[in-house]
Amino acid sequence: MEEKNLKYFADAENCPVRNVIDRIGDKWSMLVLLLLEEAQVMRFSEIHKAIETISQKMLTVTLKALEADGLVDRTVYPQIPPKVEYKLTERGLSLLPHLHSLVKWAKENMVDIQESRKQFAS
Amino acid sequence: MEEKNLKYFADAENCPVRNVIDRIGDKWSMLVLLLLEEAQVMRFSEIHKAIETISQKMLTVTLKALEADGLVDRTVYPQIPPKVEYKLTERGLSLLPHLHSLVKWAKENMVDIQESRKQFAS
Repeated sequence: MEEKNLKYFADAENCPVRNVIDRIGDKWSMLVLLLLEEAQVMRFSEIHKAIETISQKMLTVTLKALEADGLVDRTVYPQIPPKVEYKLTERGLSLLPHLHSLVKWAKENMVDIQESRKQFAS
Repeated sequence: MEEKNLKYFADAENCPVRNVIDRIGDKWSMLVLLLLEEAQVMRFSEIHKAIETISQKMLTVTLKALEADGLVDRTVYPQIPPKVEYKLTERGLSLLPHLHSLVKWAKENMVDIQESRKQFAS
């Protein structure tokens, strides 16, 4: 392995792989994207209810990061109480097939992985 | 969207999607897998040097989880000082194409994403 390639990974600031995996290589981001694809449009409270184990603060941070990356659209309806809805952008939609390919692999390998974990723990 | 599907995601314990994304949807795991594919065999210190920003403790935890999942093989050579090497298993190798598809998307969209972030921040 060339030193050059190692350095490519090490440079977190400028490496596109690191840069993007720092964001989408995050379980909450992935889950929010998968949920929004399925539901198409969701309010904050609906996403929170669906993921359950995420804290309100972490969901806020996650949605803000996804919005900043142009993966999720946030629409505020000026009514009382204000209604805020989230949906995927075109860019967000273009990422989904890659997440699905991961999920498919996960489903196919889950039984074996759980078996390995049991053996490792014993 | 059916309530059933929402519940599917919410059940972190039994949902295979959640279960596996909790593990591989982690930037350190992804980076270690990508590095090991490129280098084929690496010692702990080499992985640490390549990623740089990961703490020794977090790298230990990450490698142990990957080993437990049967994605990475750990070989200890009984010599002084002991030599420990890591490499991908067949299962680990089967996951790589899916990570590459994510990385490819990341590279293609990086410029646009960085532009979006700038606009979002201003």
